[in-house]
Amino acid sequence: MIEGIDHIGVAVKDLEEALEKYRDAFGLKVYEKREVEDQKVEIVALKVSDVKIELLKPTSDESTVQRFIEKRGEGIHHLAFKVKAPLEKFVEKLKEKEIKPITDKPSIGFEGKKIIFLHPKTTSGVLIELVEDL
Amino acid sequence: MIEGIDHIGVAVKDLEEALEKYRDAFGLKVYEKREVEDQKVEIVALKVSDVKIELLKPTSDESTVQRFIEKRGEGIHHLAFKVKAPLEKFVEKLKEKEIKPITDKPSIGFEGKKIIFLHPKTTSGVLIELVEDL
Repeated sequence: MIEGIDHIGVAVKDLEEALEKYRDAFGLKVYEKREVEDQKVEIVALKVSDVKIELLKPTSDESTVQRFIEKRGEGIHHLAFKVKAPLEKFVEKLKEKEIKPITDKPSIGFEGKKIIFLHPKTTSGVLIELVEDL
Repeated sequence: MIEGIDHIGVAVKDLEEALEKYRDAFGLKVYEKREVEDQKVEIVALKVSDVKIELLKPTSDESTVQRFIEKRGEGIHHLAFKVKAPLEKFVEKLKEKEIKPITDKPSIGFEGKKIIFLHPKTTSGVLIELVEDL
């Protein structure tokens, strides 16, 4: 079951420039900064009420976020829902409704939480990440 | 001041098909349906906790949402923040920080609320709508 929105991922070329907009102009609070080796991105998360906006800056040309920027420019990259555990059970139910995960199994994301991405072709063009809520 | 996320707008070609994903598979509740003559879109809003996902289907080839779909395909179209009244004062502060509204003045959106869109070139590629919270 979907319990809420965990975060919205925004692909950016320059974190400092994006922070001038989202932190300084909009006044959002920086929640945390981290680097995800796996996805080759540097992330700054800002809080808006109980949702996060994650600014994603690619750290390598091979990052999927870098390819997204090259193809479409900066902008919203994905939407992440919080899903009640167990995540696998929810994914099985989605598959029955023709919504397909990109990988066979969840991986471990931030704070040790299980995550999985869904194929945009099966979700009206939106890259959706599911984050298991413990 | 930004108080939260009001909604996420998703451009879709076919509302029924999108509802099979977002309502039937993800299990989100339909909040309301409406047509916005002004923007030439038909909207179905679903609730995820206190945020809405608005599925936007163009009703005319001249709709900006239709042009978005032709150029980029279905997917996330905009992000809307709730802003504490008065909206105009917040927009003035954004202008000082080089964030530009698309129109000179707010227009009246759903439920009589003032809304204004910001230019994506000034917000790291994200089309942002501000909705005045009364």
